[in-house]
Order: sequence, then structure tokens, then C-alpha cells
Amino acid sequence: MKQFKNFGFGTQIRKSPFFEATVRWGAQEFSVYNHMYIPRDFGDPVQNFWNLVNDAILCDVAVERQVEIIGPDASKFVQMMTPRDLTNMSVGQCKYILVTNSDGGVLNDPVLLRLGENRYWFSLADSDILLWAQGIAVNSGLNVTILEPDASPLQLQGPKSGEVMNALFGESIMDLKYYWHREVELDGLNLIVSRTGWSSELGYEIFLQDESQGDELWEKIMEVGTSFGLKPGHTSSIRRIEGGMLSYHADADINTNPYELGLDRLVNLEMKEDFIGKAALHRIQKNGVRRKQV
Amino acid sequence: MKQFKNFGFGTQIRKSPFFEATVRWGAQEFSVYNHMYIPRDFGDPVQNFWNLVNDAILCDVAVERQVEIIGPDASKFVQMMTPRDLTNMSVGQCKYILVTNSDGGVLNDPVLLRLGENRYWFSLADSDILLWAQGIAVNSGLNVTILEPDASPLQLQGPKSGEVMNALFGESIMDLKYYWHREVELDGLNLIVSRTGWSSELGYEIFLQDESQGDELWEKIMEVGTSFGLKPGHTSSIRRIEGGMLSYHADADINTNPYELGLDRLVNLEMKEDFIGKAALHRIQKNGVRRKQV
Repeated sequence: MKQFKNFGFGTQIRKSPFFEATVRWGAQEFSVYNHMYIPRDFGDPVQNFWNLVNDAILCDVAVERQVEIIGPDASKFVQMMTPRDLTNMSVGQCKYILVTNSDGGVLNDPVLLRLGENRYWFSLADSDILLWAQGIAVNSGLNVTILEPDASPLQLQGPKSGEVMNALFGESIMDLKYYWHREVELDGLNLIVSRTGWSSELGYEIFLQDESQGDELWEKIMEVGTSFGLKPGHTSSIRRIEGGMLSYHADADINTNPYELGLDRLVNLEMKEDFIGKAALHRIQKNGVRRKQV
Repeated sequence: MKQFKNFGFGTQIRKSPFFEATVRWGAQEFSVYNHMYIPRDFGDPVQNFWNLVNDAILCDVAVERQVEIIGPDASKFVQMMTPRDLTNMSVGQCKYILVTNSDGGVLNDPVLLRLGENRYWFSLADSDILLWAQGIAVNSGLNVTILEPDASPLQLQGPKSGEVMNALFGESIMDLKYYWHREVELDGLNLIVSRTGWSSELGYEIFLQDESQGDELWEKIMEVGTSFGLKPGHTSSIRRIEGGMLSYHADADINTNPYELGLDRLVNLEMKEDFIGKAALHRIQKNGVRRKQV
């Protein structure tokens, strides 16, 4: 991998609310994801891996932009966007889903949060699902509003992350089950926390809901976390490959279908509800796939 | 502008067909645009500016991804996507257009090429209009196919660019008018050239249609161009700001409408045809805008 001397920060690419904090805490290399900078190196990726698997790391993943679907037809609209059966999804739950187009091609693999009866967030990989969702809404006849909310997640991941969460939010947070979320407060900051992440380790995501408070939130977490061994870090490519987790664009794109990815479990062709790509995926399943990732 | 030591190239971000050539010719800094790397510095941005305004530069702008709309309803569909009146657009013509959503927000400001009676390319700024277009097609009832073709543009810009084009393609290319395009051949490479660019100088874009030929095309152009003073370069932020040209995300986004940008000339509310955002832009025009870029 060739390394280049300089990486200039332009005005066309957004900075995360945690950008200044990550620079202060040693971020040395950035990439771009969803039109935003993401720190990719705090000096030593291998050390970052060990920090993650032995202790805990705090990662700026504000690049996981949220798309909010809200309105009386939100549930119907969200089901239309994914082959995963959402019939039994409760308020407070998260689900890992695929978003497919009419050809069954994968457009994104977000975590979906159901925040209220008629309110959802897609926590996105690197593609403009805001445009896709607004596009399919145009002639859908469904009553929904689709927007990008002010929401920026951090990932707190690693075996010690539970202890850090306990120290930050109190004992009650230990009840939070895998792939559930809830609203919490931290010294006046209104947050949403979920037990999700991209590490295959115990982990949490903490969604800031006011971008002016990025510095404050980062420092509060690091201050409490340091005694548990918490380090600033970045989502680990080593761990995610080990964990068999998908990286959109690297492992999948619009020309890849769920079966080629071995993600059959995220597709339900038997459910009554229709979704975009259902007919195409039926056809693909019947004919068998030509290639498969292992 | 803080500079960082390293910029790592990850697998999640695509490389241009001209990537290796630009590195060989001195590219030192990259940014990311439409999920691809774009060279942003060949050692001295001010020298690059003078190369552009005095002679000519060759820029890798393969990041300007194309979206192709093809099929019997292509013209109707494309008109639905933009507030600019396309009634009189000829095959062979290019038009600078805006793409708006239902709220009149700007999603992109591409150059549109009409390649055939029923075939168009959107040459895009930095957002996934492929997803937007496929999204609005879902319930449109129109017969179109929407894809990303194998097409990667270079920009040849500057006062000497005409002479270079003449030497490359022969005298006949000098007939090509501003904002028109045509198919040409260069030693067996099938290309589309347009008299467009992002420099306010005389300039051309050269669209490669087979991504395996990037190196070959780059070297052929540089070989012929050197005697005219052609240098490798990058689209100049200095020149584009001087020229008052829009940089999507830096100057406009989904929450900006065309009137706020002073781009009223790209909106035709009087035309018979409907387009997405027409009702909202009517409303905005009637009520007057609250802010305006100057």
C-alpha cells in the first residue's frame, strides 16, 4: 500500500462533530465515507486491534449517517425498502438489514433502529440512501417524511465497554440487550445508545443528537473510560474481516445480490408484504447464483 | 489547513482507470469523490493554476461518474429529473443542469449529454444520482433502464487545449462547438469528446469507454501534448472560484434551492412538462428566498 505525504482537507467534505477531538487524541490518517472524513489510524493499526480485543476503544463513526423515515406510513415504507421481514420489530429494537433495488442489487447494509411507532433510522454504510428513499417516495402514495436528522454515532467497543457504559450511565444500562437501543442522558446531553457495532466484540453505539456537543461528549467518555483502559481508536479492518463482517463497496455493491453474499437469512421471500427487489430475488433464488463469497 | 502525514488507500474506495498514470506523473495528494480517489495536487496548486491559464493541463476526473438513462421513455424521464427545459436539446448537445428533489433542494449539478434519441448521460458531481434515478423510476410507469456505464472522463483544459485536440484528432475536431460532444477514435480507442469542463478556460472532456485502457489513453494524450506545453494537473479550485463555478457540497446541498444559488436561469416553471420539485419551486419563487449566494 503506497503512502502519500499529504492529505488536504477540502471544504467539499464534511467534518464530523468529533473531528477536532480525534485530532487532539492522535488521529493521523483519514479516509472519506458518506461525504465525511473518518479517522482511520491512531498511529498503529495492530495496536488498535489489541486495544479493541483486550480493553475498549472509542471510534468516531459519525460517517454512519442516519436517514429518518417518519409519518403514518413509515412502517409500510421501511418494509418496502428491505427484504428482511420486519413484522415483529419492536420499538426499541435494531435490525441489521439489506436495502435492495428492483434488480435485487444491494444498495446498502444499514442497521435499522425503530425509534417510535412511526419513526425509524437507517444507520448507513457508504451510499446516499437518503436520495434512494426520497426517490422511491416520489410516486409511492405513502405519507412519510424523509430527512437526515442531526445524529452522529460513536462506537464504544471491546470487552471493557460494558464497564465504561456502567460508569457513564449507571447500572440500569446493563439491561440493554444485543441489538436494542434506548434514549439516555449524560449530564444534560440527550443521547441514544444501542448495543451494536462493527467489531464482533461487546460494544455500544452512542448517538449524539446535537452536533455542537461533539467535543463535550468525546471528552466525557474518555475521562470516565481511561481508568478501564479505554483508548481512542478506529473501527478495525483486521477484526471486521476476522468477524466476517461486510464492508460495503469493498465486498458488495449495486451489482451484488444477497445470495452471492451468503446473506440469505436477511431475505424473506415468503412474507406477505411486498418489497423492492422481491420479484428479482425470487428469480435469482430459483435460478441459483453464479458466484458466492466465502 | 492542517496537513497529515499519511493517506492510506483502502479497498472500499475505487481507483480511477487513470490512477496509476497520475501517480507516475507526480500526483501527491488525493481526495475522495463519488466513492473514488481523485488527484488533488501535483506538487504546487499555484503552479497548476498558471499551467491551466497559460497553457493546458490534463486532469483525471473519472470521479465524475456517469448515469445512463436509456429506453423509449428516456427523454420524458430525464425531463422529470430537472427544472431546466430540455425541449430543444439535440442529440450531440450537452447542458448544465440541476437535479432537484420534491422540496426543490439541489441533489446534484451535472452536465447532461444527449448521446442518442433515447439515450442520456448525467456527468455527475459528488452524490449518488444513480440511486435517486433508480428510486424515482420504481413507481414512475416509464420504460427506462438506468445504469452506470463504463465511462471515465479526463479534462483537457487551458488555452492550448485546442491545439492539442487538433493534433490528437485532426482538424475536424475544431468544429466542435461549446457544450456539444461527439464520438471519436484515437488509434483504436473509442472515445466521446465534449467541449466542456470546470475551468472557465477553453477546454474539453474526453470520455474513455473501456476502463482497461486508462494508461494507454493518458500516455497518448501526454505524448502529443507535451510539445504544446501540456502538463498533468488537477481541476483548479482557484480558477473555479474565480470563475464562479459551483462545487457541490461546498456551495450547495440538498437543503439549498436553485434561487438561493442565483441559478434561476436553470429553472423553467413556465414549461408544460412536469418535473420533480416544480410545485415547491413555484412556492419558493412566489414567497422569495431568505438567503442568496453572491
